[in-house]
Amino acid sequence: MNDRQRIRGVLSPVVTPFKADLSPDPERFVRQCRWLLSQNVGLAVFGTNSEANSLSVEEKIELLDRLVAAGLDPARMMPGTGHCALTDSVRMTAHAMKLGCGGVLMLPPFYYKGVSDDGLFRSFAEVIERVGESRLRVYVYHIPPVSQVPITLGLVERLLKVYPAQTAGMKDSGGDWKNTQAFLDAFAREGFDVFAGSETFLLQNMRHGGTGCISATANVNPGPIAHLFGTWQNADADTQQARLDEIRGTFAKFPMIPALKAAIAHHGGDPTWTTVRPPLVELTPEQSNALVTELDQRNFTMPGLRR
Amino acid sequence: MNDRQRIRGVLSPVVTPFKADLSPDPERFVRQCRWLLSQNVGLAVFGTNSEANSLSVEEKIELLDRLVAAGLDPARMMPGTGHCALTDSVRMTAHAMKLGCGGVLMLPPFYYKGVSDDGLFRSFAEVIERVGESRLRVYVYHIPPVSQVPITLGLVERLLKVYPAQTAGMKDSGGDWKNTQAFLDAFAREGFDVFAGSETFLLQNMRHGGTGCISATANVNPGPIAHLFGTWQNADADTQQARLDEIRGTFAKFPMIPALKAAIAHHGGDPTWTTVRPPLVELTPEQSNALVTELDQRNFTMPGLRR
Repeated sequence: MNDRQRIRGVLSPVVTPFKADLSPDPERFVRQCRWLLSQNVGLAVFGTNSEANSLSVEEKIELLDRLVAAGLDPARMMPGTGHCALTDSVRMTAHAMKLGCGGVLMLPPFYYKGVSDDGLFRSFAEVIERVGESRLRVYVYHIPPVSQVPITLGLVERLLKVYPAQTAGMKDSGGDWKNTQAFLDAFAREGFDVFAGSETFLLQNMRHGGTGCISATANVNPGPIAHLFGTWQNADADTQQARLDEIRGTFAKFPMIPALKAAIAHHGGDPTWTTVRPPLVELTPEQSNALVTELDQRNFTMPGLRR
Repeated sequence: MNDRQRIRGVLSPVVTPFKADLSPDPERFVRQCRWLLSQNVGLAVFGTNSEANSLSVEEKIELLDRLVAAGLDPARMMPGTGHCALTDSVRMTAHAMKLGCGGVLMLPPFYYKGVSDDGLFRSFAEVIERVGESRLRVYVYHIPPVSQVPITLGLVERLLKVYPAQTAGMKDSGGDWKNTQAFLDAFAREGFDVFAGSETFLLQNMRHGGTGCISATANVNPGPIAHLFGTWQNADADTQQARLDEIRGTFAKFPMIPALKAAIAHHGGDPTWTTVRPPLVELTPEQSNALVTELDQRNFTMPGLRR
């Protein structure tokens, strides 16, 4: 891969549609991904908001294969490939490489807590070595509120030293701008691409040398978020950011993943979309109504979603 | 299964041996499990101390198949079968049932934090329903320091109401005796079997109607722990408990899993045993020496381990 083609901009951790029997729904998945691409949003499939860790490796491979078979551009895909088990991470990462994905978003192994940077370095290094592809682009995934296993500056420094080509960047979902800025200050000049974990930090991230954002709400508000990415140097950027924050704020009042799915179900006219896998639960009808009502009051739309 | 044959006593979350290339080592695994059974300790393979979550489902199925093929009694096995992904938990649990395992130890899905009891109930219920075996015996696994997803009294009450046959018991690795006692008080009379998560609580657990313990250090000190289980009503029980606590205390000064493996490597005369999978790291030579020296000072032995 030519590094001038590195993934940039806004990506969606695409929510995974399930059928009534809780099996993944490839048709709805392909359709949703095609719609996101039409809104200039890339595909960080199998992220936290995708319920990726509630899916087996086989289920994820099948879904990824279906996207590529449907003609969607793998260069726009950054699937999540980090698992607790080394062998699962290797298998999923190798498969993403085989399909030509532009990058992979890699969680650290997240079962054991308080592990050392030595152990985490060895985890990422084993995956990179076993996959053995110079065109592999790994984005390390810092999401301590969920994984409870943080990515430190020292770990990235070590990875960049040993694997400068493969250590492509990170997603920072810690919610702490100071941490994002520390990574930007330390590594952005070396071509390490920092994606904010929410569009809340998109403008700030771009103004400090960041690369874009990978955000839950890019599932439902992709066009306006991508628009800010494309025009962040314009005079109206702060106004755009404030409008994005309003919509984000509405979703943040509810459990995020069921709320994203409820909005897609409502605005797409497709109630099947509300289904989540356990341990998550759907919004109650009351929550769902409250969400839709507040979104309507904010003149929120999802253009082009309804078939 | 006749419920009078329910698993009782002391079980070891068997540490998983790896070859130099980090692949699981079935020969050493079978040998270790056979030794543990000879010490009157059952096989809670694929527990936290087994690095189970660092193994793929395929690797675990292969290891379990090898144990049964080697003639070890599946009625003495309580493999860990709980995964983040519903489909992985179903697959592993169904396989354990097919092999005739006496029970399964089930982690809740542990990626998402702060999930509701509704969502956790639905997780366990889906596995029980999909496996569809009346002889399935599920032991729910409470280990909040690692999983960060606790098992509550309310959840167990609901499971017992809907699945009285399959909801067989729990392992409490929370390290809080008051919590163990609350589960004993609430459910032991209904035949819900509470295993303490460490032999530190073995005597206390037995005196309050518990069923035994499933403990890391049963990997290295199985005979004496099993002896206390068998003689807990004897006059010397407190003396036995104090001696167990001393040995446990020595191991607890080091990272537990690498320390267990270092002791097996040393006392078994088999250095290959020290290998751990990332994100864990082996003890340093200094740590290893300090462990062995202190164990020697305590006259610690592992009789019958060396071939």
